[in-house]
Amino acid sequence: MFNGIISDVREKAPLIHNITNYVTVNDVANAILACGASPIMADEPAEVADIQTICGGLNLNIGTLHKASIDAMLTAGKTAKRLGHPVLLDPVGAGASHLRTQTAIDILDIIKPDIVRGNVSEIKTLAAGCGLSAAASWRSREATTGPAGEIGTTKGVDADAADAVTAENLPQMVRFVKDFAQKAHAVVAITGAIDLVADGETCYVIRNGVPGMSRITGTGCMLSGIMTAFVTARPAQKLSAAAAAVAAMGLAGEIGASHLAPYEGNAALRSRIIDAISLMDDATLEKGAKIEKR
Amino acid sequence: MFNGIISDVREKAPLIHNITNYVTVNDVANAILACGASPIMADEPAEVADIQTICGGLNLNIGTLHKASIDAMLTAGKTAKRLGHPVLLDPVGAGASHLRTQTAIDILDIIKPDIVRGNVSEIKTLAAGCGLSAAASWRSREATTGPAGEIGTTKGVDADAADAVTAENLPQMVRFVKDFAQKAHAVVAITGAIDLVADGETCYVIRNGVPGMSRITGTGCMLSGIMTAFVTARPAQKLSAAAAAVAAMGLAGEIGASHLAPYEGNAALRSRIIDAISLMDDATLEKGAKIEKR
Amino acid sequence: MFNGIISDVREKAPLIHNITNYVTVNDVANAILACGASPIMADEPAEVADIQTICGGLNLNIGTLHKASIDAMLTAGKTAKRLGHPVLLDPVGAGASHLRTQTAIDILDIIKPDIVRGNVSEIKTLAAGCGLSAAASWRSREATTGPAGEIGTTKGVDADAADAVTAENLPQMVRFVKDFAQKAHAVVAITGAIDLVADGETCYVIRNGVPGMSRITGTGCMLSGIMTAFVTARPAQKLSAAAAAVAAMGLAGEIGASHLAPYEGNAALRSRIIDAISLMDDATLEKGAKIEKR
Repeated sequence: MFNGIISDVREKAPLIHNITNYVTVNDVANAILACGASPIMADEPAEVADIQTICGGLNLNIGTLHKASIDAMLTAGKTAKRLGHPVLLDPVGAGASHLRTQTAIDILDIIKPDIVRGNVSEIKTLAAGCGLSAAASWRSREATTGPAGEIGTTKGVDADAADAVTAENLPQMVRFVKDFAQKAHAVVAITGAIDLVADGETCYVIRNGVPGMSRITGTGCMLSGIMTAFVTARPAQKLSAAAAAVAAMGLAGEIGASHLAPYEGNAALRSRIIDAISLMDDATLEKGAKIEKR
Repeated sequence: MFNGIISDVREKAPLIHNITNYVTVNDVANAILACGASPIMADEPAEVADIQTICGGLNLNIGTLHKASIDAMLTAGKTAKRLGHPVLLDPVGAGASHLRTQTAIDILDIIKPDIVRGNVSEIKTLAAGCGLSAAASWRSREATTGPAGEIGTTKGVDADAADAVTAENLPQMVRFVKDFAQKAHAVVAITGAIDLVADGETCYVIRNGVPGMSRITGTGCMLSGIMTAFVTARPAQKLSAAAAAVAAMGLAGEIGASHLAPYEGNAALRSRIIDAISLMDDATLEKGAKIEKR
Repeated sequence: MFNGIISDVREKAPLIHNITNYVTVNDVANAILACGASPIMADEPAEVADIQTICGGLNLNIGTLHKASIDAMLTAGKTAKRLGHPVLLDPVGAGASHLRTQTAIDILDIIKPDIVRGNVSEIKTLAAGCGLSAAASWRSREATTGPAGEIGTTKGVDADAADAVTAENLPQMVRFVKDFAQKAHAVVAITGAIDLVADGETCYVIRNGVPGMSRITGTGCMLSGIMTAFVTARPAQKLSAAAAAVAAMGLAGEIGASHLAPYEGNAALRSRIIDAISLMDDATLEKGAKIEKR
């Protein structure tokens, strides 16, 4: 269903500008290279307009915000939108501090990113907090998690287990992500054990991946980088490109995990995921993707 | 002797706030995840009080200081102490610049960290430089290293060989670390070929680890991250929790080194250490720890 | 031909001060350790003079510039030159933004680095842009790439394919790098599929390496770190020391690639390169180096 997107990314080799956290920045650069695109990292406000001008897409990740990098994100975001380049927002840790929540909401309001990718707690925080009252359908689920759960309970940079997308709450969560996507005029991806990628009308439910991916830092950030590359290569098909990135990342996790020796653990899995991305082809993705449309 | 601490950390999964250097930050995050805790990195002064509030412990590492991050360390440290959260100081490179030495001393004086972990040169610098004249017993060793040795001779971020804890100077070094721990009201860990972990009364001498660990960047920083997690999981037993972290890290080095192919070197060892931490259980730690009490 | 340089670096273990980007900083530190030297990273203007004073060499890499780090580079650079320490400039992304181009030129003009190492597009940008009209001989090649090609067409942080050193343009490129080296009073290294390392009179052409190295972030940055270490260990033979570093890095890529399993890709190659550096000895380097003098 992805119509040769891997080859397309490798052939077009889009240049992706990343303003991202310093924890996983190396993984993000290597993941973007592995999928066939080229990364450049630049967060000094004085150069980000120049850098974005020579790039094709922009990946904004608030994982380690600094005051200067917030300025850089807004400047680069405006440049990207003026030039018609896709912009992705990864609201890492939204809900964990006032600064993160407010910055994510500001980027959403001012830049109007084309894609938002986060864990479920981060996306709930954005939906509830930015005046987009997308939470109507989602609030209708049994509110077993109490008031905090209702606005998304970020556990640091990880999702709260109580927020997770499950087989039970899937219909409500699909409704929620579509509502939020419609109101944000963006493709929205909620990733976790079950991944949802939606615009206002269509939601892909993706079940690739392995549990160990949540015990490595950077799998979400790498996915945001790859997703920006995929969408930049196919700007007219943002939804399916974003879904392809999610499936490819999950599948890379499965492939990586399948090659672990008994004495290999988290660090080997991280490397093997990047290895699998660098070796992935379209046939592997089509065959391995566990995706359904809702 | 560690009474199930690995399971305890994995079950409690404490959230650890790290203000750390950008060289090894990814390794620190992955090591904390590998031991079963959750990391969050945040060093913007405007958000660190918020972040510390949702966390259980604080890891301060001065490996790449910036003026803003110094402010962040002090703000986060005060918040942590007010909330009763354990604070660890890793004085990377204390002695290498006035800024590092002074910042480490300021954190010691103002924040009064619960744990201080560094190499022997860094700890000597702190002891000699902060008005804690803990060096009395230590000065009694044969001063073969001359005046520079007496205040700790930091070789960049590595310990000076002349400062090393050895079989010969062990009694004096045990006295020294106990004295410093007592005066700093902290658990103090000096790590190297022989590791010492002490409070004012008891010193654990730990002999796990392999020499190759000193030729990889980040083993000390990872240990500080894990130690913060262990102590946060067991705040009432800081000394034994810190000693368990030291033994676990050294043992992970031994296990990692045992799985190296002939063509594998430093980078493989780094990955294998994180792998071994992620796979470690209490039985392995109890059996493998080479620890004695002095 | 390298006269035991690997043993020399391992024995002297020079301490190298790095002001470098936060994308590949961990790889740079590990590569420097792997070759037998010691790294320290410090970019706070308030401490860089102190840090440089205790070091033997300085590696300046503009991969993620910040306003404060530019100040730090100039301060550290002046200290290094005053003390007679070798300084290397890696002009990552020169040509990609006004800030990067101008900063690289400023460092060239003000600090007068002993070594400049970059990809061909970066070096062309420097040569054309800094008033060193070294481009005369180089302009004489068939200008198939048009005007942009004439001043170096940086594709983000990667070289433009149209700029590449090839068998066809090798004589002109050798002339160009010698001219630039002479005018910059520096050893200049242009690295890519074919590497050139030259001073004003002699150019080494090196053909080690594997294509996959260009699909990993950090191979260039790691090489700059190692090259600084090699030149610091042999300050009287800067040209051959720089050439040895280039050959060693390329050879490490070949060795690393030879140990990849079918399911291993980019991330495994990165680790294996660092492994190969950590295991390299002089006999391996002498036997494996593919180097000719022009």
